[in-house]
Amino acid sequence: MSVMWAVKVVGLGVVAVSLSAELLGWLLRRLRPGRSLNEVLFFPSEVACVEHIFTPSSTHACCCSLPHGVETSFSHLLRHILSASSTLDLCVFAFSNMDLSRAVLALHSRSVTIRVLTDKHYAAITGSQIGVLRKAGICVRCDVGSVHMHHKFAVVDGRLLITGSLNWTLTAVQSNMENILVTEEPDLVQPFIKEFHRLWARNDPAQYHPSNDHKNPLT
Amino acid sequence: MSVMWAVKVVGLGVVAVSLSAELLGWLLRRLRPGRSLNEVLFFPSEVACVEHIFTPSSTHACCCSLPHGVETSFSHLLRHILSASSTLDLCVFAFSNMDLSRAVLALHSRSVTIRVLTDKHYAAITGSQIGVLRKAGICVRCDVGSVHMHHKFAVVDGRLLITGSLNWTLTAVQSNMENILVTEEPDLVQPFIKEFHRLWARNDPAQYHPSNDHKNPLT
Repeated sequence: MSVMWAVKVVGLGVVAVSLSAELLGWLLRRLRPGRSLNEVLFFPSEVACVEHIFTPSSTHACCCSLPHGVETSFSHLLRHILSASSTLDLCVFAFSNMDLSRAVLALHSRSVTIRVLTDKHYAAITGSQIGVLRKAGICVRCDVGSVHMHHKFAVVDGRLLITGSLNWTLTAVQSNMENILVTEEPDLVQPFIKEFHRLWARNDPAQYHPSNDHKNPLT
Repeated sequence: MSVMWAVKVVGLGVVAVSLSAELLGWLLRRLRPGRSLNEVLFFPSEVACVEHIFTPSSTHACCCSLPHGVETSFSHLLRHILSASSTLDLCVFAFSNMDLSRAVLALHSRSVTIRVLTDKHYAAITGSQIGVLRKAGICVRCDVGSVHMHHKFAVVDGRLLITGSLNWTLTAVQSNMENILVTEEPDLVQPFIKEFHRLWARNDPAQYHPSNDHKNPLT
């Protein structure tokens, strides 16, 4: 009889230990889910060929005069943008960089749902890529309720935030001191998603009445 | 005998449960140490009186015509800046906002060590607060190696990063669509601290030779 009780006690001990181990594993997975991606990129970026990022499966080597096989801040930025598999929400003041435009068009051709919100004045200047995106069928809205729509952020797949001081221009990438912060931290990503939805809805041309032009919709 | 065994089994169960609870508490404290601060502020900010932020202990109520007792994006930004107790490293393209200038001067008067790095062209324009800071004895350096020193970030006490699209101007605060991200996440704060040190050292007037003006120091 006492042997049977001893077996039960040992069995109970084993169950307690295994449950604790399971709880520990669950907690570790729950509280540290591989840790969120956090990356900071600084500019100006070294100038290098980015052809391999657009055509990774190509066997034909690029023969342009730029350095090849160099990872730069700009190549990291391009990779993060091109990682989109379902959605790209872009909210940017100035957009004239041809490589970044090519990245957005590449996503569009892969059926990624793209929404672009931009500044009403900058969208019309020479060199802006906004017209190119519109012609390709990408949905673009211009902010009508502020002096400048000065944001420079993108949300990839509702998961990854790309934000910073960098406008999507060649000068910003190659000549200015700039920063880009890339994060999956939900506390940081979610407010940007919410703000994008708010601005997108607010600048719906179907809802927009010219009489509202001089009112500040935020007050 | 079997009653004694039952008591032991129950006792063992209680010990197992209490140990698991203790382990759970320890893990929660260890893996979530109050969680790092993460906050996102959007602008334009509602316009409200900020006098109480500069003089929290004053018994004299402000009688200006602005709304009082309202917490806004701008008041949050001011509070984060004024939370500095030892250092403020500021790297900003445009600085003409009088309230933000007042905050920096208040920190200076409290013996907080302040370093300001700014754009060489914008520092000289009408309304810039850079001259005011210099006259107060705050150490200011202008970036000489880029087209624009376009950053807009601050690091408070080597701990808190304030970064985003917002220049330190009145238009940015009150009229533009802008964002500010505030975080204590070390993965995000540390690269900005390192970049500030790099830019600060690179723009030391004692080290600067005019012959370097046309060279790109990053290549």
